[in-house]
Amino acid sequence: MTSTPELLRPGSYVYGTWHSRPDGQTLYDAVYGRPVAVLSSEGVDFAQALAYGRQKGAALRRSTFHERARALKALATYLMERKEDYYTLSLLTGATRRDSWVDIEGGIGTLFSYASMARRDLPDERFLPDGRVERLGREGTFVGRHLLVPREGVAVQINAYNFPVWGMLEKLAPAFIAGMPSLVKPAPQTAYLTERVVRDIVASGLLPEGALQLVSGDPGDLLDHLQEQDMVAFTGSAATAARLRVHPNIVARNVPFSTEADSLNASVLGLTVRPEDPEFKLYVKEVAREITGKAGQKCTAIRRAVVPRGLVEAVTEALRAELARVTVGDPARDDVRMGALVSVEQRERVRETLSSLQKEAQIVIGGERDLLGGDREKGAFLDPTVLLCPSPLTATGPHELEAFGPVATLLPYDTLDDAIELAKMGRGSLAGSVITHDRAEATELVLGMASTHGRLLVLNRDDARESTGHGSPLPQLLHGGPGRAGGGAELGGLAGVRHHMNKVAVQADPTTLMAVTREFVPGAEVREDVVHPFRKSFDEIQVGDSLLTHRRTVTEADIVNFAGLTGDHFYAHVDEIGAREGIFGKRVAHGYFLISAAAGQFVSAAPGPVLANYGLENLRFVEPVGIGDTIRTRLTCKRKIRKDLRPGETRPTGVVEWRAEITNQDGALVATYDILTLVERARDAYDPLPEPPESEQVIPDAAQA
Amino acid sequence: MTSTPELLRPGSYVYGTWHSRPDGQTLYDAVYGRPVAVLSSEGVDFAQALAYGRQKGAALRRSTFHERARALKALATYLMERKEDYYTLSLLTGATRRDSWVDIEGGIGTLFSYASMARRDLPDERFLPDGRVERLGREGTFVGRHLLVPREGVAVQINAYNFPVWGMLEKLAPAFIAGMPSLVKPAPQTAYLTERVVRDIVASGLLPEGALQLVSGDPGDLLDHLQEQDMVAFTGSAATAARLRVHPNIVARNVPFSTEADSLNASVLGLTVRPEDPEFKLYVKEVAREITGKAGQKCTAIRRAVVPRGLVEAVTEALRAELARVTVGDPARDDVRMGALVSVEQRERVRETLSSLQKEAQIVIGGERDLLGGDREKGAFLDPTVLLCPSPLTATGPHELEAFGPVATLLPYDTLDDAIELAKMGRGSLAGSVITHDRAEATELVLGMASTHGRLLVLNRDDARESTGHGSPLPQLLHGGPGRAGGGAELGGLAGVRHHMNKVAVQADPTTLMAVTREFVPGAEVREDVVHPFRKSFDEIQVGDSLLTHRRTVTEADIVNFAGLTGDHFYAHVDEIGAREGIFGKRVAHGYFLISAAAGQFVSAAPGPVLANYGLENLRFVEPVGIGDTIRTRLTCKRKIRKDLRPGETRPTGVVEWRAEITNQDGALVATYDILTLVERARDAYDPLPEPPESEQVIPDAAQA
Repeated sequence: MTSTPELLRPGSYVYGTWHSRPDGQTLYDAVYGRPVAVLSSEGVDFAQALAYGRQKGAALRRSTFHERARALKALATYLMERKEDYYTLSLLTGATRRDSWVDIEGGIGTLFSYASMARRDLPDERFLPDGRVERLGREGTFVGRHLLVPREGVAVQINAYNFPVWGMLEKLAPAFIAGMPSLVKPAPQTAYLTERVVRDIVASGLLPEGALQLVSGDPGDLLDHLQEQDMVAFTGSAATAARLRVHPNIVARNVPFSTEADSLNASVLGLTVRPEDPEFKLYVKEVAREITGKAGQKCTAIRRAVVPRGLVEAVTEALRAELARVTVGDPARDDVRMGALVSVEQRERVRETLSSLQKEAQIVIGGERDLLGGDREKGAFLDPTVLLCPSPLTATGPHELEAFGPVATLLPYDTLDDAIELAKMGRGSLAGSVITHDRAEATELVLGMASTHGRLLVLNRDDARESTGHGSPLPQLLHGGPGRAGGGAELGGLAGVRHHMNKVAVQADPTTLMAVTREFVPGAEVREDVVHPFRKSFDEIQVGDSLLTHRRTVTEADIVNFAGLTGDHFYAHVDEIGAREGIFGKRVAHGYFLISAAAGQFVSAAPGPVLANYGLENLRFVEPVGIGDTIRTRLTCKRKIRKDLRPGETRPTGVVEWRAEITNQDGALVATYDILTLVERARDAYDPLPEPPESEQVIPDAAQA
Repeated sequence: MTSTPELLRPGSYVYGTWHSRPDGQTLYDAVYGRPVAVLSSEGVDFAQALAYGRQKGAALRRSTFHERARALKALATYLMERKEDYYTLSLLTGATRRDSWVDIEGGIGTLFSYASMARRDLPDERFLPDGRVERLGREGTFVGRHLLVPREGVAVQINAYNFPVWGMLEKLAPAFIAGMPSLVKPAPQTAYLTERVVRDIVASGLLPEGALQLVSGDPGDLLDHLQEQDMVAFTGSAATAARLRVHPNIVARNVPFSTEADSLNASVLGLTVRPEDPEFKLYVKEVAREITGKAGQKCTAIRRAVVPRGLVEAVTEALRAELARVTVGDPARDDVRMGALVSVEQRERVRETLSSLQKEAQIVIGGERDLLGGDREKGAFLDPTVLLCPSPLTATGPHELEAFGPVATLLPYDTLDDAIELAKMGRGSLAGSVITHDRAEATELVLGMASTHGRLLVLNRDDARESTGHGSPLPQLLHGGPGRAGGGAELGGLAGVRHHMNKVAVQADPTTLMAVTREFVPGAEVREDVVHPFRKSFDEIQVGDSLLTHRRTVTEADIVNFAGLTGDHFYAHVDEIGAREGIFGKRVAHGYFLISAAAGQFVSAAPGPVLANYGLENLRFVEPVGIGDTIRTRLTCKRKIRKDLRPGETRPTGVVEWRAEITNQDGALVATYDILTLVERARDAYDPLPEPPESEQVIPDAAQA
C-alpha cells in the first residue's frame, strides 16, 4: 500500500523560478483512486518562458558538444543516486517496479548514452561539419560543404503520461547535446513524477540555467508564441497530434513539429516455426510481456499478433497459460506482476475500444481475476485480454482501433505475403517484430515490412538472451515511424541530435572553407614551417600545417626486399610474366610499401609529442608505381580532436588527423590517405577535468606506431 | 519576335494515357500578351492516378539504384538532344536564353548529376544499409543497423511557375533514384513547357511506365486521396504552402509535406571591403545579376543587399551604372538582357508590394526605360528597381514583403553583429551570401547566419571565376531553408534521395542481420572453404566467405629490416631507451609491417580473379605487437559492389570489400581494417550494358596491389 500524507503541488519551472498554486486540477492515484496532487499552470507567462529560453540558449550554444556531454553525464550520475525517490512516486501511477525501471533507469541511461555518443562521435566544437567537401568547379577554387549548427530557439517537448521520466529525458538528451534549450510539458496524469525529477535537475545546478524549463498543467497560449527557430516534439495520440500540428502559428511560422504517436504494432510468428521450436515459446512470452508490461500502455506494444493459421489454437493455449500466471493488483506488492492503468478514465476508454473491437473479433482470453491489493472500483485495473479476428485481411477494427491497455488481437495468416499485408494494414508503426530462426523468412518479412516501420526486431534462439524486446526503444536506434506512428524520428544516435540543428551548405574558396569549418580542405593554402609538424604539441599544431618530404626512387631491390620481408609475393610485384599480362602491364611496387616508405619520409624519429599512429582512413592507390619511379609525400594537418583523459592515462593527448598525399616524379597523385595520430598536449594548455574519468573509450585501447 | 500559330493544349498524362481538352483556362504569353495555351485537367480521375502510381511503384522498386541511374542518364541525354524545342517555348514565358539555360540545361544537368552520384555512392541494390552496425548486448549476439527502403507511395510534386523544367527535374531525379514514382503538378502559367518535356519523356520510353505522371491544370481533389506512404513536395509561396499543409487528409494521414518557399535572401558586403577591392565590384555585379536574372523571379534571389553604412552611396552609384546597362524587352532579341515577368497579374502584384515597401524605404534606382520589343501594356515588363531603407533594424517591410520581380532593397549596417541580425530578420532564407576576402570576417558572418540559412556563399577574388553565384542551387548541396523558406530539404546529394525513403532500425542476431543487409556483421557465422577466396570470381564470392591464415612470429630482425627498408626509424621501433620510456614501454613492430605481413599471409600469389587491392578503410591498431609475438589474420568478405564497365575497360569487374582482423597468440585483436579489391566477374555472369560507358569514375583510375 502506498501512502500519500498530503497533496502534491507540482510546479512549473520557468524563467528561472518555480511557480505553483494551491488550487487546480486534482489528480488521483491509479491503484486506490485517492487524491494525489493538484495541478495548475495559472500565472505562467508562456511568451516570457519562450523568450527566456531563446535568450539563455546563446550561452548554451557557446559550450561545446563535449562540455554538454560532460554535464549530461554528471546529471545522469546525480539522478541515478536519487532513483529510489522516483520509484516510490511511480507506484502512484500504477506502475510495477519493473515498469518503472524502464521509465526511470531507462531514462537516466539515455542521458549516459548520449553523453557517451557525443564524446565518441562529435568533435569538441560548437558546430558539426557534415559529409565530404564537394568540388564545385573544374579548377578546385570553388568548393562546398555542409555544416550543422544548433537551432536558435526552444525545443518544446510535449510528453505522454506513460513514461514521465524516460519521455522527458529521451527528448532532453539529444536537444541538450545539440545546444538547444528544452521546455518540457508533461501529460497531467503523471506530471508530479516528471516535476520531481526536474526539481532535482534544477537543484543540481549541473545544467546551465535556461537549458530546461517545465510547464506543469495547462499549456495555455504557449503555441501562439512559437517562432521559426523553435520546434515542437510531441508524443501522444494521433488525434491530439493532428489538432496541434495545424495550430495557426505553427503553420504560419513553419515551426518543425514532430510526432511520435501510438501505433498498432504487429508481431509476426514465422511460417517455418513449429510448436516444439524455441521460437514458439519466445513468441508467446514476447506477446504476453507486451500485453502486460506497463499494463499495455506503451506506444510500441504488440497490438496485433500475426500467427500462421495452423498455429492459432496452439498460440492461444500457450498464451492463456502464460497470462494465467500474471498477477494483478497493487504494484507496491512484490507478488504483483501487473499494476493498474493510469486512471479510471483511461480504463473506460480502453473498455469502449474493446467493445468496438468485438464487432470483428472475439475475446479468447479474458475474464476478471482476483486483485492482489488495489481497489477494483476506484483503481484503474483491467485484466489482460486477447481477441481473435478470424478474417483479418477484410476486417478494419484490429488495424485501426487502439485499446491502449493490456489488450492484443490474434490475426491468422496463410502466406508470408499475407503476413506482410496485415502488418502494413496498421498504416505505419513504431515497432514490429518477426519471430523465426529461418534467415530467408526473416529477410523476406523484414524487407516486406520495412517501408511501414520505424524499428523491426528479429527474435530467435540466437539473440533471445540479449534481446531488449519488441517494445523497447534504444538510444542508438531510431524511435518513430511513418504514417500512423506520426512520422517522427527520435533517438537513433546522432540522428536525434542532428534533428535539433540546422543544416546549411557553405560555398567558398578552399582556404575560406578551411577557416570556417576548421578542417583542411583540398586546395587550401597550407603553411610550411622550419619546425617539423611532428615536433609540435597538439596545441601548437594548426589545421593547414604542412610538410613536403624529400624524394625517394623506388627500385627493383625495394620491391624484392619488401616481398621477401612481408611474404607478399603477389604476381603483380614479383612475376615478370604474370605482371606483364596483368592490369598494370609491368611489375609495380606493393601499395603497402608505398605507405611504409612515405612514413619513412615524414616520420620524425626521436621521441616527441606525436606518440603513435593508431589508425588510417580513406586510403586509395591512384596510380601504380613502377621500378625507377620517384615518390615524395605531402603531409598536412587535416583536423584536431581534443580528448579527455581516460582511466589510467597520465599524459593528456589529442587526436590529430593528417592528410597524406604521395606523388610521383610527374607530380601525379599516387596514393592519398588520412593518418590518425595521438599527440601530447602542451603542459600548460591543459585544464584537468572536474569529473572522474569514464570507462567508455574514445579511441581504441592501445595504439601502435 | 515569337510566333504562336495556334493555341497549345497542354495535356495531363495519368494512368498511362494523355488527356487534354479543347476548353479551359487561357494562358497569355509574357511578352506580347497574346493567347498561348488553353489549360484544363477536367476529367482526370485523381484517385485513379494515385492508385496507378502506387501500383506501378512496385515494378520501379524492383529495379536497383544503378538501373535507375542508367535510365536517368539515358533520359538526360535524350532530353539534351531536344533542348532547342524547350528554348523556343521558354521565350513565351518571358525568359531570356540565359534564364532558360538555368531552367533547361540546369534541369537536365541535375538528372546527369543524380545518375552519377547514385552509381558512385549507392550500392547496386534495392535498399540502402545506413550507418554502422550497433552492438546492443555485451556478448554480441544482439545487434542493430538502419536500412533505408523506398516509400511505397507516390511523390506528388507541386511546382512553381518560374522554373518549369528544372523545377520538375530536380524533384523527379532524387525521387526516381529512391524508387518512388512522381506525379507532377506544374504551375498553370508555364505548364505548357513542362508538358512539352513530359511528352518527350513519355515518348522516349526510358522511364518505366508509371514512374512519371503529369497533371496540367487544376489539381481537383488530388490531395483528398493521398495515403500514408505518399508524400508532397511543394515549391511556391509561403501562403499557399500554409494552406495546403493543413489539408485535412494530409494531416489525418500524416503525409510528409515539404515546402520550398520564396525567401527574403540577404547578401552581405563585408566591413573590411574597400571600394577599390575586387570584392566591391563582385558584390555590385552579383546584386545586379540577382535583380535582373529571370527578371528577379527566383526564390533564391537577393532581396536585401546588406551594405556597410559608409559604402551605401558608392554601392548605389555602382549598381546604378551596372543596371543602366541592362536592356529590357523581347527575350527573343539578342540585344535584350532582361525579359518580362511571367504575367501582367504577377507584375501588378509586384507593383503593389513595391508601393508597400516605400513606407519604410525610398526608390534610389528605378524609372521606366525603352523596351527593345515586347508590349509595354500587354507584356509583363517591369524595370529593375532598387530601394534604400535607412533604418533597417527597426523596419519591418524589407524583411517581410517580397516583391517577386527585379526588386531589391539596400540595408545599411554598422557592425557585423548588426549585419547578422539583419540577415536573420528574414526569419529563414534559402540562400545568403557574404562578399569578403577576409577569412575571419567570412567565418564570423557564416557562423552567425548559419542557423537561418539553407545555403551560404562566400564570394571573393579567389572563387569568383568558378562561383556559380548566390542564386544557383546545386545538386550536391542542400536546397531549402528553415522558417520562412519552408523548412524543406531538396537536392543535397544523396540526402535528396534519402528524403524519399523510409528509415527502419533492424535488430537481430549477427547472422540474420547479415542475411537481411547482405553485408558482413561482426559475430555472424562465416563460411570457410577449401578454395582460397581470392581464387573465386566476383560472382562466386559470397558475403561471409572467410579465410584464417597460418601464423607468423614477429622477430627483432623483422623490425630492424622493416625500418631499414622503409626508412622509418621511429624510436618506438628501433630505440630501446626511447621505447622503454614511451607509451608501449618496449620496442614494438611498425603498424605498417603488421598489415604488410598480414597481406603476405592471406594473398594468393598467382594470377587470379582478384586483380588489385586499390584501397583500405577503417584501419585501427588495437594492441601493440612486440618482439616474439605471433600473429595470424582472418579475412572475411564484407560487401560486394557490382560496377559497370568504364571507358577503355575490357574486363568486367566488381569491388569486393574484405574485413581483415589480425590477432596475436592470445587471440587478442591487434589490428582491424577493411580492404578494397577489384575482382573479375565470371565470364557468363556478366550482362553487357545497353548504354555507352560514361566518363565519371566509380573508383579511382588505376589500382595498385
